[in-house]
This record gives sequence, structure tokens and C-alpha cells, in this order.
Amino acid sequence: MGIKKFTDIEPTRFDSDAVKGVAGRVLIGKADGAENFCMRLFELSKDGFSPRHTHDWEHEIFIYSGQGAVFRNGDWIPLEPGCAVFITGNEEHQMKNTGDKPFRFICIIPAGPPEL
Amino acid sequence: MGIKKFTDIEPTRFDSDAVKGVAGRVLIGKADGAENFCMRLFELSKDGFSPRHTHDWEHEIFIYSGQGAVFRNGDWIPLEPGCAVFITGNEEHQMKNTGDKPFRFICIIPAGPPEL
Repeated sequence: MGIKKFTDIEPTRFDSDAVKGVAGRVLIGKADGAENFCMRLFELSKDGFSPRHTHDWEHEIFIYSGQGAVFRNGDWIPLEPGCAVFITGNEEHQMKNTGDKPFRFICIIPAGPPEL
Repeated sequence: MGIKKFTDIEPTRFDSDAVKGVAGRVLIGKADGAENFCMRLFELSKDGFSPRHTHDWEHEIFIYSGQGAVFRNGDWIPLEPGCAVFITGNEEHQMKNTGDKPFRFICIIPAGPPEL
């Protein structure tokens, strides 16, 4: 049994034209012996956003802290702590921070794609 | 894309000699089209605990709110929000609330076993 706190993991930071202010951490993945699915935590700083993209694997997301929104079919849907979001394979999506504090969410993917 | 807040889902309650004060909710499962893994949220009331048990599938857990502990190899390990716990298949485990407020955590399992 492995136990970690996310703040003890050094984040990988993403900043470019397509993604801003994103810090990603693998909480449970292949290196821990997880063979079926991988748990990551993403932290979007104020005004931060993930890329608007599509891929053939699903996301199971749970909002941990902060305020944000998810892009769905042309609209931004507000998200708050306690919300779960299921994004199916091949569905366009993007996340953004709409508040003043870090927007943090858990995102689980199946094994196979890059973990970060 | 499906979006839910956990408080909008009616919980299934568990109370017996082996389990006390546990409310379980499926956030993302088969009924949502999730074919590979299932996200549940468990809420343990004050003094609540899950059963001490073993099964052949893994858990990927993330602590959302409250204070609790997990039973590992004869010891209780404290848990707080932001902690991730990876319980491998066939590893004995149990969760309990050690605080005064509800202890809530996300628990992801592979598809196949009962969702609750």
C-alpha cells in the first residue's frame, strides 16, 4: 500500500500558447504498480488553462479545490469542488481556472497513454 | 460529457457489525458509459468505518475532506485531504473517520466488481 500527499510530489509544469499555468503530478501510476488506470492531479494557477484537445481515451475527473469550468460543445460549464466529470474518448475538452485560487482536480486515465 | 455534483446523488447507506456510518455514491460508472473503471465517493460519518476486508481488485483512493486513517499491516496510518492511497489487489484494508466532520474520499476500481 502506497500513501502520498500530492504536495510531496514535484510537479511537471506546462506553459505554452496552448496551455498556461498547469502543474501536473502522477499520484498513482505504473511506477507504483498500477496496471489498469492512472491517477493524476492537475493544478491550474489563476487564469490558467489546459489545452483544448481530443484523444481516444476517457477522463474521469473529480474537482478537489478552487473554481473552474470545462469546455463542452461550445459552452463553458462551471465546476466546483465535489463535481465529477466524465469525458468520453474522442470528446473535445478543455479546463480553465475561473477563480483567484488554484483550481485542482483529479483526472484518471486508462493505462496506455502517457501518464503526463 | 456528464457532469454531476456528489451531493445531487442519493447515497446507498451501509451499517452493520462490520461497517458503520458509510454512505456510498457512484459518481461515474457503467450507467454513464464508463467501460474501464468506476469512480465512487464514500462518506464516513463521525466514528464511521468501512469493513476490514480483502479482494482481488485494486483501489485508487484520493482524500477529499475530513480526517481519517487507513489500516495497513496492523497499523492505522493517518490520512488528510490531498492524500492518495494505492491499495493493491489482495491487500487487507479498512478506512475509518478519526475526526468530528464527515471523512470523504474518492475510490476508483476497475470495471467488473460490484460498483457499490
